[in-house]
Amino acid sequence: MTFRHSVVALALSAASIAAPSYAKEAVDLLINDATILTMNADKSVYQHGSLAIKGNKIVAVGDRSLAERYQAAQSLDVDGDIVMPGLINTHTHVSMTVFRSLADDVPDRLHRYIFPLEAKLVSRDMVRIGANLGNVEMVKGGVTTYADMYYFEDEVAKTVDKIGMRAVLGESVIQFPVADAKNADEGIAYAEKFIQQYRHHPRITPAFAPHAPYTNTTETLQKVAKLSEQYNVPVLTHLAESHREQEKIAERSGGKSPVQYMHDIGALNKHLVGAHMILVDDKDIELVKQSDMGVAHNMSANIKSAKGVSPALKMYDQGVRIGLGTDGPMSGNGLSIIDEFNQVAKVHKLVNHDRAAMPPVKVIDMATMGAARALHMEDKIGSLEVGKLADVIVIDTKAPNMVPMYNPYSALVYSANAGNVRHTIVDGKILMQDRQMLTVDEDAIRDEAIQFTDVVRKTVIDSGEEVL
Amino acid sequence: MTFRHSVVALALSAASIAAPSYAKEAVDLLINDATILTMNADKSVYQHGSLAIKGNKIVAVGDRSLAERYQAAQSLDVDGDIVMPGLINTHTHVSMTVFRSLADDVPDRLHRYIFPLEAKLVSRDMVRIGANLGNVEMVKGGVTTYADMYYFEDEVAKTVDKIGMRAVLGESVIQFPVADAKNADEGIAYAEKFIQQYRHHPRITPAFAPHAPYTNTTETLQKVAKLSEQYNVPVLTHLAESHREQEKIAERSGGKSPVQYMHDIGALNKHLVGAHMILVDDKDIELVKQSDMGVAHNMSANIKSAKGVSPALKMYDQGVRIGLGTDGPMSGNGLSIIDEFNQVAKVHKLVNHDRAAMPPVKVIDMATMGAARALHMEDKIGSLEVGKLADVIVIDTKAPNMVPMYNPYSALVYSANAGNVRHTIVDGKILMQDRQMLTVDEDAIRDEAIQFTDVVRKTVIDSGEEVL
Ligand SMILES: [Zn+2]
Ligand SMILES: [Zn+2]
Repeated sequence: MTFRHSVVALALSAASIAAPSYAKEAVDLLINDATILTMNADKSVYQHGSLAIKGNKIVAVGDRSLAERYQAAQSLDVDGDIVMPGLINTHTHVSMTVFRSLADDVPDRLHRYIFPLEAKLVSRDMVRIGANLGNVEMVKGGVTTYADMYYFEDEVAKTVDKIGMRAVLGESVIQFPVADAKNADEGIAYAEKFIQQYRHHPRITPAFAPHAPYTNTTETLQKVAKLSEQYNVPVLTHLAESHREQEKIAERSGGKSPVQYMHDIGALNKHLVGAHMILVDDKDIELVKQSDMGVAHNMSANIKSAKGVSPALKMYDQGVRIGLGTDGPMSGNGLSIIDEFNQVAKVHKLVNHDRAAMPPVKVIDMATMGAARALHMEDKIGSLEVGKLADVIVIDTKAPNMVPMYNPYSALVYSANAGNVRHTIVDGKILMQDRQMLTVDEDAIRDEAIQFTDVVRKTVIDSGEEVL
Repeated sequence: MTFRHSVVALALSAASIAAPSYAKEAVDLLINDATILTMNADKSVYQHGSLAIKGNKIVAVGDRSLAERYQAAQSLDVDGDIVMPGLINTHTHVSMTVFRSLADDVPDRLHRYIFPLEAKLVSRDMVRIGANLGNVEMVKGGVTTYADMYYFEDEVAKTVDKIGMRAVLGESVIQFPVADAKNADEGIAYAEKFIQQYRHHPRITPAFAPHAPYTNTTETLQKVAKLSEQYNVPVLTHLAESHREQEKIAERSGGKSPVQYMHDIGALNKHLVGAHMILVDDKDIELVKQSDMGVAHNMSANIKSAKGVSPALKMYDQGVRIGLGTDGPMSGNGLSIIDEFNQVAKVHKLVNHDRAAMPPVKVIDMATMGAARALHMEDKIGSLEVGKLADVIVIDTKAPNMVPMYNPYSALVYSANAGNVRHTIVDGKILMQDRQMLTVDEDAIRDEAIQFTDVVRKTVIDSGEEVL
């Protein structure tokens, strides 16, 4: 492990400018005695390090000498625990928590089971109830930012605003009738209204979310691409995920791959974030790189549906903007990125027949800076560096599964689970402290979700399906 | 889900015989309002069920009417939480926790790194310190029984006795000099002494543990097979794990597979428990079945080392005695079986190209009854049935990742983590309650393990290796 001091030096000189040497600079939150994984370009690690937060920004990160420089309104002494950037979930459908553990493993599940279920049950209430529950799960699992694709995203936005998380929220555009739009044009209109409402929110980035290339027309995809340029907002989509999609797009385009097709219609660009990207060849990867688009890699969901393993490691090694995601809670089924680590590391080793493939530091990089890059937010989040937004998590290193810790990256990837997250801080504000939620009522949220399951159960039974 | 009442009826009639209808039968522990997964042959599930424990045995399991029949010294009202058989870890090297997160992902790691490290560091102290830590991790992760292969197993036995777990402890036999024996014959002598000492312990089953076929001579393997028959104790070994083993055994035997070789020398029998069993073909599986041996399937460790995926699902479907294991904490790296579920389910789907392969109920069966069968303990543990030993765990179903719960097997396999285990009961005694360890001092155990890491660090650095 290398210990670099450039960041410390920078922080100290910034402090010297701001205050005379005899006075301590006032900060809002000071974290002390931490094993800090900065995830900066050098992957600097500080043992017994300190991190200072003022307002919603990181003002210093470095070794223990920093602590002397600051007068903090609040201090967290973490006794050697890991302090790292908040985890970023680059792809989910958070409101689907209310359907979790329903009819897992059904063949052709999306079209045969999920779409019909959603036609009956998606509503403003359902979206709010599910998002509230999923938000709590993510904060308790160390996720500070997520990218979502669903309906009634203005309801999701209200829950994100309330709990204090950061999110990119993509309003769905799809060619058949759904709960909040009769067709793709209505979906686009809904999205535009949502974008206008939230485009200046400090923590929420509104976005378009065309469901997939094969569930939209070429005209719709082109219209969304044009509008995303006009509003300067992201476009979240499922891309190169399934053989059904591959066939439909090939039919439509005279044999093109989904990525090639999206490129050729002008929809592959820096606004796009493609989830899954399983069925991509080297030529597709070259197009992805050139387009500067982002990629969401959802290992756990992809292997649960036996869809295959994305060449995510190859894309990462070639410099593609790629981060980790969970997909929705009917797909993964968890929402916590920390529980993806183990599978991401190990399944890439398995398919590459190489135990050295996908070492822990790459997994952590994909969950932090890689994910920030995938969402084009790397100037604001993804690493612990002076000037960045204060999205920070603290991982318990005294739980028996985390002992010993010769290598903190290994401990995180091969041993940690979501229950090991102690504190979650977003935008300088503590959302969870010692596993207690501070900004929302966890019990009320859970109870409302459990009540809603009666509605779901009844609907499923009425439709003649068994509730397993 | 089917709700069967045969077990309830049986329990009630047993109660009627034991006490007149106006008096309540005295029991030691009563668990109420539980979602009980019995894992009996019918996979009976009780909603709002009750389970009664007297001494170290289950005396009743069934629906809520049971609660009225008993006067309990202690009650646990679990408010709908999952109550299920304690998890069984069929293969580990518990004391290696002290090396966890050291030099993961090094090529040819066993021979180049681990064996030399062990030659320097294995001692009675190291074995005790590591076992104490691993035991706590397992109890907190819902493991009630484990099978271990290592050195100084009498030290492991003392820790198991103290914490109150159940274990099959295999003393290593290996042809080169190790910490507690100069050669295989000394290993056998050590094991015999250990077996004589512990063969009547109520919770500990002493065993022989020849490291692997290729690290022992044919004569040693035959001697162990004979002695295991004589003492009627298990033989734990690594089998059909690596290409190195495959080549060495082929050289020795004129081209036989490791399983065929073990069969032909008379070592494949009902006492044997083979860990890994990755490199087995249909003919090998047939021999395994006929021999009535047990198999330990360690998915997470096997894919971490890129060794491949055992045809565990095929063996399970053919009725082979097979359970889940973690392998040692330098291999997996966790010891909690609950954190294996997700990978076991999903990687088998991936390699079988079938999302319906390895459904959650099979995973839970492999972690409970399957594992009990692998260790030939299915008459005593592995399911919640009247007359069986009271090894019971309670899983929190109110944690956000566990909500909702349309299907408890799905929730356990696709959503749960070790942190969701609330209570762990072994032999009728509560070892962990609301995540607090009751029989050992968790902080003291962790601190002793952390202190020992200084010795490990110094040894590694002195040998010229980097710690990372
Ligand atoms: Zn998705
Ligand atoms: Zn092993």
